[in-house]
Amino acid sequence: MSSTWKVQAGKARNILEESIPKQWLVPADQLPPLDQLNVVGFPRKSGMLTEKELAITECSAIALVAAMGEGRFSAEEVVVAFLKRSLNFATEFMAEEAIARAKELDEYYKETGQLVGPLHGVPISVKEHIGFRGRHLNAGYVTWVDNIATEDALIVECLEEAGAVFHVRTNEPQSLMHLCCSNNLTGTTLNPYNRNLSPGGSSGGEGASMGFKCAPLGIGSDIGGSIRCPAAFCNAYGFRPTIHRNPCRGSKVPAPGQESILGVNGPLASQCIEDLDLFQRALLDQEPWDEDTSLVPLPWKQVSPTEDITVAIMWDDGCVRPHPPIIRALKHAQERLRAVGVNVVDWEPYNHDHGWNIISSLYFADAAERNRELIRETGEPTLTLTEWAFQYSRSTPLTVTENWALNSQRDEYRNDYHALMKSHGVDFILCPAHVSVASVLGESHYWNYTAIWNILDQPAAVFPSGLYVDPKLDTVDSSYQPRSAEDEREWKKYAPERYVGAPIGLQLVGRHFKDEETLAAASLVSNVLKESTKL
Amino acid sequence: MSSTWKVQAGKARNILEESIPKQWLVPADQLPPLDQLNVVGFPRKSGMLTEKELAITECSAIALVAAMGEGRFSAEEVVVAFLKRSLNFATEFMAEEAIARAKELDEYYKETGQLVGPLHGVPISVKEHIGFRGRHLNAGYVTWVDNIATEDALIVECLEEAGAVFHVRTNEPQSLMHLCCSNNLTGTTLNPYNRNLSPGGSSGGEGASMGFKCAPLGIGSDIGGSIRCPAAFCNAYGFRPTIHRNPCRGSKVPAPGQESILGVNGPLASQCIEDLDLFQRALLDQEPWDEDTSLVPLPWKQVSPTEDITVAIMWDDGCVRPHPPIIRALKHAQERLRAVGVNVVDWEPYNHDHGWNIISSLYFADAAERNRELIRETGEPTLTLTEWAFQYSRSTPLTVTENWALNSQRDEYRNDYHALMKSHGVDFILCPAHVSVASVLGESHYWNYTAIWNILDQPAAVFPSGLYVDPKLDTVDSSYQPRSAEDEREWKKYAPERYVGAPIGLQLVGRHFKDEETLAAASLVSNVLKESTKL
Repeated sequence: MSSTWKVQAGKARNILEESIPKQWLVPADQLPPLDQLNVVGFPRKSGMLTEKELAITECSAIALVAAMGEGRFSAEEVVVAFLKRSLNFATEFMAEEAIARAKELDEYYKETGQLVGPLHGVPISVKEHIGFRGRHLNAGYVTWVDNIATEDALIVECLEEAGAVFHVRTNEPQSLMHLCCSNNLTGTTLNPYNRNLSPGGSSGGEGASMGFKCAPLGIGSDIGGSIRCPAAFCNAYGFRPTIHRNPCRGSKVPAPGQESILGVNGPLASQCIEDLDLFQRALLDQEPWDEDTSLVPLPWKQVSPTEDITVAIMWDDGCVRPHPPIIRALKHAQERLRAVGVNVVDWEPYNHDHGWNIISSLYFADAAERNRELIRETGEPTLTLTEWAFQYSRSTPLTVTENWALNSQRDEYRNDYHALMKSHGVDFILCPAHVSVASVLGESHYWNYTAIWNILDQPAAVFPSGLYVDPKLDTVDSSYQPRSAEDEREWKKYAPERYVGAPIGLQLVGRHFKDEETLAAASLVSNVLKESTKL
Repeated sequence: MSSTWKVQAGKARNILEESIPKQWLVPADQLPPLDQLNVVGFPRKSGMLTEKELAITECSAIALVAAMGEGRFSAEEVVVAFLKRSLNFATEFMAEEAIARAKELDEYYKETGQLVGPLHGVPISVKEHIGFRGRHLNAGYVTWVDNIATEDALIVECLEEAGAVFHVRTNEPQSLMHLCCSNNLTGTTLNPYNRNLSPGGSSGGEGASMGFKCAPLGIGSDIGGSIRCPAAFCNAYGFRPTIHRNPCRGSKVPAPGQESILGVNGPLASQCIEDLDLFQRALLDQEPWDEDTSLVPLPWKQVSPTEDITVAIMWDDGCVRPHPPIIRALKHAQERLRAVGVNVVDWEPYNHDHGWNIISSLYFADAAERNRELIRETGEPTLTLTEWAFQYSRSTPLTVTENWALNSQRDEYRNDYHALMKSHGVDFILCPAHVSVASVLGESHYWNYTAIWNILDQPAAVFPSGLYVDPKLDTVDSSYQPRSAEDEREWKKYAPERYVGAPIGLQLVGRHFKDEETLAAASLVSNVLKESTKL
């Protein structure tokens, strides 16, 4: 049995290895030494990329499309430049098809002088469990290594129609339920800012792809933080939209039909919030609701950023205290936002432990039986963080009646939270994206700085604060009296030397269905922070 | 035990009796004789209403609002006129409050020359399980006879804000799951067109209210046909919107949190489709989604009727053949629509038995345990049609895993049906609202001419064909070979003398979320039919 799963898992590594574009492979002796933690600068040093290619990979999607519209870049140059940056987070490269597609786009542009759509020639990396017709689709489970997708995921179809070029598929954890990125197929994905740290998860390959600037945009999915945590850990941008706006048809998941807590597909970006908005507009302009009837026919609105908003800062969720670097980044944001005239107040968290009790009970309502069965099928080892997630559930399945009671609690909590924001006149909540900066590999235990917004179904964007862990400023508060064992566990993890070089991300949360407004406000906040750290 | 439930049930009848406005009570000896089946004309004959009051009760909501806007009717005259028509379908009158509210509206109009909103002074009857703060709320179960609502239902709140006057609460069956209207509290509601027939259900009191013209508008709820069946049975208009548009907060239901198949609140009307549109606009203009986060923020659009549509007629659902009067009404509609230039084609039903298997398995996923428990609490008898509905479920509860599989089947079936309509270029499906006209009391067994559009979550409107059962035209087809025991059961029920005087309703179904378009098309079809039977 144990040899069986290894043989099966080997297939996934073969797929990856065969797909690697060999002409751009860096010789082993030129790779960064194993003890070099931060490898973000490696592509520049490797000499594999020309100056123009390096410039291309520093562009936002918006800038790329503009340059292609003026004929300054071709789609082919663009995709090749990004392909050259790809490193250890891929499950499969699609270099040949991507270049062929880019050539087609260039041909079209040459003939018509027009771009095919708002994402013309923009390379987009894609989390593995989002299907491509005719390609393997394993969702991080060995048992599915031979599964072939029969259709393109609807989100892929829509973005392709808008001009996107898909060049690489990216890693995800076993069960899709770690805020980390390890499985028995492709292995463990690392954080490009510090290879002792996690890129986050479950869209960890996307986090690394963004951190490494291997694409201006990526597609992830999020049911408890799986877009936002990788974005925050990797100094990138990410957006979890309100559910029922972005299509999920064609994603492989362990328990389809579970709808008490829905995952949702959304974008990550390496350069700016505005690219997330571009992604959403390009996607929803394709009217995916006319294909997938689970979606709501709400067109993407144009909303401009304005300082005339009230932002409430949540310093702590009342359960587990964020690490010192996070608090420092929030203070910095508070000052900068006040300086530009934004009304900044404090936010008192409302029963976040109750929210966590509901959502954690609903993640595996079947006592994770379906997931365990998938593992048993090949005998692949259950990874530690897989077991960590499974233990959120009870040891026996919920009855449908118990499930209904939790659905009702969820709806009530959602309405109460919404009413609370309204009654306080709060438009947005600025808060940690995680209790810590990028966690040490295997240590992403506490989910509720992101998962809370899943149970509440509120749109949330993540962006870099512009700050990094600083051992001088971010000292340990040894006088802290933890409120619980959980609080103590997280507090004890912190020591600045464990998080060297880690970027500090922040999260901005809007009201239910205020997706456009949330991205507009996140653009404002993010740009204020960018300005303030440019000096 | 048995005496206990009778005592409890008696409280509901006391509430009703105490609420009856005695000054308008018709003396017992002037009531229609028990053997008079059709009592629709009784209010006119009773002498209780003046000519003006009779005229008022023949007005649409649109006409009433216009007349109040011109000062020709006062809100008080209007509500009194409608109160005088109320008969055996009420669970409680709210005459005093309604008249006080009407006086307030009249006062406002006198002072400002303005109406308070688009439903200024429009009397609306309301299905009992939709709550009013401080009033009893029993949802048809004896065990809840002492339950008092702590808030107004959100739909009530919104419509009140728009100017509506609520004057009467109406009956519903035990469990809310009969297409008929009988419970152990208020008794059995009859069809005003023939007292041997059912007014439909579960919003049967609303059906009777509309058939009797006791209000221009009513609020019902629909999870398998509960708005549309009463409308069709009682010569009225009814609309089941796509879910997540109309608010349901504040309704009492046996199994809150069950969301695989969602019920939805919607309007019934006694005069015209256009009043259903008025109701929807007035409701959604209040932006209920900013109170109830389960709703979608889609404003109600203005859509005008046009002949430039393709209507496909579904003559038979492939499972149970409709009775002869229904087929005749469809043929009549086909001719009339073609005569005005509408493109009319045929519709081949797509796996309606599969749709029924899914939805019927999901109605009582807990093996109706919750409902049975509510019955056991007082020992009230389980009515025959309650047991009929309960047996849709298995004898043991579904596991959550089985529930998920059915959810997935539902979503796939929904997408397939949607794609099929698109690929055939079909905008609307015209079909029976029920296998028969108003069923004989206790005989509403076959749900799937309405329930199919619940599983598919498509908007559907019901309206009178303008025709009535005609013994000469609607003869028994004794040569018919039934396709199944179910088909045979329904076919054997038919004999024209069993359905004397029954109106024939029809149903028009639009695509998912095309609510406004569906009402616009239903307005066109209904008005074409009205014209054709005016002669």
